[in-house]
Amino acid sequence: MDSIEKLTEHFKEFPGIGERQAKRFVYFLMAKNPNYSENLAKLILDLKKEISQCKECFRFFNIGMRKENTCDICSDSRFDESMLMIVEKDSDLESVKKSRFYNGKYFVLGGLVPIVEKSTPSRIRLNELKDKIKNKKNLKEIILAFSLSPQGDHTDMYLKGQLTELAESLKIKVSSLGRGLSTGTELEYSDNETIKNALKNRQ
Amino acid sequence: MDSIEKLTEHFKEFPGIGERQAKRFVYFLMAKNPNYSENLAKLILDLKKEISQCKECFRFFNIGMRKENTCDICSDSRFDESMLMIVEKDSDLESVKKSRFYNGKYFVLGGLVPIVEKSTPSRIRLNELKDKIKNKKNLKEIILAFSLSPQGDHTDMYLKGQLTELAESLKIKVSSLGRGLSTGTELEYSDNETIKNALKNRQ
Amino acid sequence: MDSIEKLTEHFKEFPGIGERQAKRFVYFLMAKNPNYSENLAKLILDLKKEISQCKECFRFFNIGMRKENTCDICSDSRFDESMLMIVEKDSDLESVKKSRFYNGKYFVLGGLVPIVEKSTPSRIRLNELKDKIKNKKNLKEIILAFSLSPQGDHTDMYLKGQLTELAESLKIKVSSLGRGLSTGTELEYSDNETIKNALKNRQ
Amino acid sequence: MDSIEKLTEHFKEFPGIGERQAKRFVYFLMAKNPNYSENLAKLILDLKKEISQCKECFRFFNIGMRKENTCDICSDSRFDESMLMIVEKDSDLESVKKSRFYNGKYFVLGGLVPIVEKSTPSRIRLNELKDKIKNKKNLKEIILAFSLSPQGDHTDMYLKGQLTELAESLKIKVSSLGRGLSTGTELEYSDNETIKNALKNRQ
Repeated sequence: MDSIEKLTEHFKEFPGIGERQAKRFVYFLMAKNPNYSENLAKLILDLKKEISQCKECFRFFNIGMRKENTCDICSDSRFDESMLMIVEKDSDLESVKKSRFYNGKYFVLGGLVPIVEKSTPSRIRLNELKDKIKNKKNLKEIILAFSLSPQGDHTDMYLKGQLTELAESLKIKVSSLGRGLSTGTELEYSDNETIKNALKNRQ
Repeated sequence: MDSIEKLTEHFKEFPGIGERQAKRFVYFLMAKNPNYSENLAKLILDLKKEISQCKECFRFFNIGMRKENTCDICSDSRFDESMLMIVEKDSDLESVKKSRFYNGKYFVLGGLVPIVEKSTPSRIRLNELKDKIKNKKNLKEIILAFSLSPQGDHTDMYLKGQLTELAESLKIKVSSLGRGLSTGTELEYSDNETIKNALKNRQ
Repeated sequence: MDSIEKLTEHFKEFPGIGERQAKRFVYFLMAKNPNYSENLAKLILDLKKEISQCKECFRFFNIGMRKENTCDICSDSRFDESMLMIVEKDSDLESVKKSRFYNGKYFVLGGLVPIVEKSTPSRIRLNELKDKIKNKKNLKEIILAFSLSPQGDHTDMYLKGQLTELAESLKIKVSSLGRGLSTGTELEYSDNETIKNALKNRQ
Repeated sequence: MDSIEKLTEHFKEFPGIGERQAKRFVYFLMAKNPNYSENLAKLILDLKKEISQCKECFRFFNIGMRKENTCDICSDSRFDESMLMIVEKDSDLESVKKSRFYNGKYFVLGGLVPIVEKSTPSRIRLNELKDKIKNKKNLKEIILAFSLSPQGDHTDMYLKGQLTELAESLKIKVSSLGRGLSTGTELEYSDNETIKNALKNRQ
């Protein structure tokens, strides 16, 4: 395999990129001047150097001037410590943060729990989450915030089962994001589950 | 205009049908045997004869053996009279009915309230709705059930404004379908409004 | 089945229409005033009365004032009798006619020859075509004009096989539409067959 | 701008990539292990080192063991020297090469001629092409091979005008890729230009 093919293979791993577009990326880079490629390579290497994973919430963050091992949210007391939102991945967290409707802390679970899996999944940070809950003072509410897919739904139920006892003993409420009509939902074409939730949660 | 062109024009009025597909429909009918066309024409005429608009909820219904002017829902006491769901159109009603999660009565508003319109819109059945609320005994809750579009949202607010006083005087609750994540919503790509509602309505 | 369901079933047979859109058509008709439905039903019936199938080319045409059994193209001497274009269906003919780049006569085959079929297909008008070729004086060229799909390609080859001997004996040329790049073809994404044809037919 | 934002900006320049997907690429890289990023950066740098632009056809090629400045096609006598195909870009060349229906040499023009541009465009390699034609012995045919877009069509005409005199003086034929139906073309939905070409190039 020459470098064109190798690079194509790498780009094919990028989310949402197939063979054809991976190849186009390589041709694009070949036609660009060398400066562009050098910058790009440098930025990719810098990303790993300048990015650290927060020891508190497992989110990736820009180290910048920061000396600590914790991200700008975890180390900033203006974010409400009494609330902890559990999300699947960094991009979910960014999406909620950008909305400015939530001002609490976060915890990145690192994945969803597959429906078929029987044993406690090792791929999510369940133990880290339990430790965090135990050690966090002032925590009053845990918000489970997963996408409304079969796996997201399953993860929601799984975590409820895993956390209920612990949360109750610490008098922490466990809630899930509300369900119902979302922007753009047309009643005519809604699935039964959405109609059920919209009715149940009417107000 | 010959009959091909005239019929094409008619089919172009069908929802979601453009010039090209309207023409295909005409060619399709030309190639079908005469029986098919006769049946189709008869069914279209029958529809108007066999369908009546319910005097209670303004839904279209199949007359069938029914002697009354009211549809099978309005005349059936197994549907809960204490609840009244306000929908925009027949197909919304069918969608909710099919879900089997709602067992109350309905009222078809006949449209949504455009955002720009200042005067009380004559295109929706506001007076008919008010009359119905006044005359309906045992009514305990009105559920506003509109699609989550700018117009649906506006209609929701408009009706709340129009009905609050009347409803309060009659001790009737006015609610709206719940909002939040709907089936398929991915947190990463959610708009701010959906995130706000999902957070507000968490439980 | 009531008339709503029956009419939905009928609309589902329309080209490109599924269950959901068929239902929307029915609701659309229910909400329209009775005049609209009556007009539509009348036009559908009129179509069959006012449309006849040409005895010469098997195209559907508007009878209008015409007393004859032949369409306006077949009975009009301004269309070049020395050329005969064989098309699959009426809408293909209309498309070529509208382009104004062809001024000869047409013959509607009534279908394509499925690839798997072994026996002479009864579904296309092969005998009628052969009769027409034999009886038509002044015919100099037959143009096979089918869509470039596997079936269209197969029909092209099949007809060449069926017509060659007859055409040669009458000194009639048999040609097929040219192949190569069509409007919008991007070289980068072209399939091998298109590249082959574009190269072979370069000029 | 931190490194996340900078890298997002870079990925946004990739062909077909918008803000959202650029961001996903960055998150994808953050979550991957450091090895992956190092490999990717190395491959991007290697690409520029291992890739050279052919002095003959301006195509990018893998240097590999090759000492020369010419690519594997230009330096291989098994490719027919009597034919020269002019393409817009490397990916068009790869597409034709992969089809195995052409065995001649290539020339990468480096772009298309915009329709509105009056002055001789400096962005395409017109002078280099003319020099090549003058110096190439045994050249018998130049094939213009551009996508069938308005710009591709314009470039075809522009080059014909620029090359005709030179080509005639050297007795070199100038041809263009054939036009007509391409794979998947449906006669019913064809534009007039495609029908015209298909008719003109019938055979």
